Amino acid sequence: MSDIEPRPGAPPQIVLVINSYATQMEFQWFRMAEEHRVLAKGVVDQIGTNQAVILHERYDGRELHEKMPVENADAAVRAIKHQAMSGDLAIIKSASEILCIGHRVVHGGEKFTAPTRITDDVKKSIEGFKTLAPLHNACNLAGIEACEVVFPGIPNVAVFDTAFHHSMPPASYLYAIPYDYFQKYGVRKYGFHGSSHQFVVNETALILGRAASSLKLITCHLGRGCSVAAVDGGKVLDTSMGMTPLPGLIMATRCGDIDPAVVLYLARQNMSADEIDDLLNTKSGLLGLAGVGSGDIRDVIDAAGKNNQQAAMALWAYVQRIVSYIGAYYALLGGADAIVFTGGIGTYNPYIRSRVIGQLGVLGCHLSETKNYAMGKTQIISDDRSSLKAIVIPSNEELMIARESFSVMHDEKIPAAS
Amino acid sequence: MSDIEPRPGAPPQIVLVINSYATQMEFQWFRMAEEHRVLAKGVVDQIGTNQAVILHERYDGRELHEKMPVENADAAVRAIKHQAMSGDLAIIKSASEILCIGHRVVHGGEKFTAPTRITDDVKKSIEGFKTLAPLHNACNLAGIEACEVVFPGIPNVAVFDTAFHHSMPPASYLYAIPYDYFQKYGVRKYGFHGSSHQFVVNETALILGRAASSLKLITCHLGRGCSVAAVDGGKVLDTSMGMTPLPGLIMATRCGDIDPAVVLYLARQNMSADEIDDLLNTKSGLLGLAGVGSGDIRDVIDAAGKNNQQAAMALWAYVQRIVSYIGAYYALLGGADAIVFTGGIGTYNPYIRSRVIGQLGVLGCHLSETKNYAMGKTQIISDDRSSLKAIVIPSNEELMIARESFSVMHDEKIPAAS
Repeated sequence: MSDIEPRPGAPPQIVLVINSYATQMEFQWFRMAEEHRVLAKGVVDQIGTNQAVILHERYDGRELHEKMPVENADAAVRAIKHQAMSGDLAIIKSASEILCIGHRVVHGGEKFTAPTRITDDVKKSIEGFKTLAPLHNACNLAGIEACEVVFPGIPNVAVFDTAFHHSMPPASYLYAIPYDYFQKYGVRKYGFHGSSHQFVVNETALILGRAASSLKLITCHLGRGCSVAAVDGGKVLDTSMGMTPLPGLIMATRCGDIDPAVVLYLARQNMSADEIDDLLNTKSGLLGLAGVGSGDIRDVIDAAGKNNQQAAMALWAYVQRIVSYIGAYYALLGGADAIVFTGGIGTYNPYIRSRVIGQLGVLGCHLSETKNYAMGKTQIISDDRSSLKAIVIPSNEELMIARESFSVMHDEKIPAAS
Repeated sequence: MSDIEPRPGAPPQIVLVINSYATQMEFQWFRMAEEHRVLAKGVVDQIGTNQAVILHERYDGRELHEKMPVENADAAVRAIKHQAMSGDLAIIKSASEILCIGHRVVHGGEKFTAPTRITDDVKKSIEGFKTLAPLHNACNLAGIEACEVVFPGIPNVAVFDTAFHHSMPPASYLYAIPYDYFQKYGVRKYGFHGSSHQFVVNETALILGRAASSLKLITCHLGRGCSVAAVDGGKVLDTSMGMTPLPGLIMATRCGDIDPAVVLYLARQNMSADEIDDLLNTKSGLLGLAGVGSGDIRDVIDAAGKNNQQAAMALWAYVQRIVSYIGAYYALLGGADAIVFTGGIGTYNPYIRSRVIGQLGVLGCHLSETKNYAMGKTQIISDDRSSLKAIVIPSNEELMIARESFSVMHDEKIPAAS
């Protein structure tokens, strides 16, 4: 373990990143002096059961897979701490090596436009945004409070999924409903997957050897959740998600764009708001449309390959929606330098990329089939004659959250030291 | 009146077109042998009051403007009949000259994909679609039933706003919600303004001297209601309205696209479905966003010109939404031959056209400012170097409805005569 030992007397520089869902908690441990060096990462799954599983995977490839009861978020964080500090696969000796814990928080509302050190007031605000994002923020908050209990004295930082989109102009983020609903209740488009979009914008600038401020980019985060952003000079011009992560592209189980009157129709069939919410967020998307009992696009592609017509149609719809947004943002941006694919599907699914880019010849984007099949690494996949480049960049939201949290702590310390 | 006298013994060939709203009924009288010759047209306004107004404008420019009590749709049709057959501005001598009455019907559901002669069964179906289009179909039906009473024995034909969009493929018209909702309840995208989109597609083919089947067109109907369609070879590939005429572009009082979760948010604030419906259909759009007390784009442009920042932002949002859809459909179509502007705003508002086309240089569309200012007539307004043409075509939905109704009667008569 000597190669990861901190220098004696060195200030704490480990950052733990936590992404907390209802029954799952993902984590990564970073040493920020060598930030691409992940010390360990993993997940606690099936929280709330006696059959929870913790996976702890260390930098040297050794991993541990353990079943145990994990009743709640507190117990999950205790399990994460235990694996990091005890036993064969430990990576730190003492919690004092930890600089801070960075938390992905889905909704930052109008208030939070940058990563923010967590205080009681911040927690109250995050709780307040539950009306805007009922499912996500409560889980994020549970993760934060668990860390406060299990790692007393270690600062917690919230990194908001909405923050990067804060640069959107009002003409993009306001809905055409009475202005009061924005002013009084914060009803507007916020956008999500901000850390992912921001990460790939920065990486694209590096790859192309140009300043982000000079680039027009269309960034496509395609995973279980999917969103597109039009990014002009590092600022978001528009994005496909909205007040919540429901609209836009077709996702694994979320419906994406639909006529809002469909919600009224369902309400008039005596469905409650919670039932409709559940239908549109967890039973829709590819799961609802393809009818193959799975929202995983690989299962839909398999079924379509076996001549399942409904699955083939759902795939077509999925691809068409992406093509629509790319075309829309290409026009809004007045042309673009590159389309960037990230997220699980964006990074690892050459078939979907090929279907999408196959329709973009008219925008000057032509696929190199050879480059497209290099899986899971950063790569320009358009051919040389393309005026509009296509690029794959594996996203690293956790690293982005670690960087952002680190910078908050760093900024805070400068005045204290002066 | 001799120049509009029917030849003795000629078969009836007058078509009356009715567009029936809640408090308004528009009408036009056509002689189909010379179909561009409108014998008379007008509107009965403020139906349901003692202060209703009928405007009857004859082919020779003479017009009549009369105030009277008009309690319901029956009384409105009686007033229309009276002006057409009596007094100085009459245009026909007897109802026997009328071949049929063509009615605009907003929603034809899954069932009606072509103009249809009205029977009791057809009326029942139209009534059934009220769950899909609560506001519109009931008014259309009231107009039909009034004509049955006032013009006994004259056939009525329904021309559906949804019919032209019937050619959409399932990947465009299905929402990504469980497939059951489509199969059992007909929840899908239907599209509206069909007669208008179809009319301008036909006209564009004439103007460009090409078959509609060879053209890729983006047709923009911009009026109080606004919709865009991507039309590939005369068939609709996609359109911006949905199950109802609510989504898509920002309209005078309708919200267009919003996160469907906004509806859930409002429901959780204890608004009823009817209240939310009213908010999104009648208090939103430019009226809600610009905050100038009017949904008329001319008022919003005026206010923006007087440095009202909110109005300027609303205009920008209105234009950006149109540009987005044009870009989306350009990509979906794999390029396009022309963008067509129609509807009140599309035809008579050069400023809005200029703002929209000003952003489309990247798609190869460049405005001729000179041609753009020729108001209200059919005109190519892009300059000669444009690979993507822009065309203004004053829509004539009434003529389209007259033609469609005439053809239904004609088709029906062929078998009867053989």
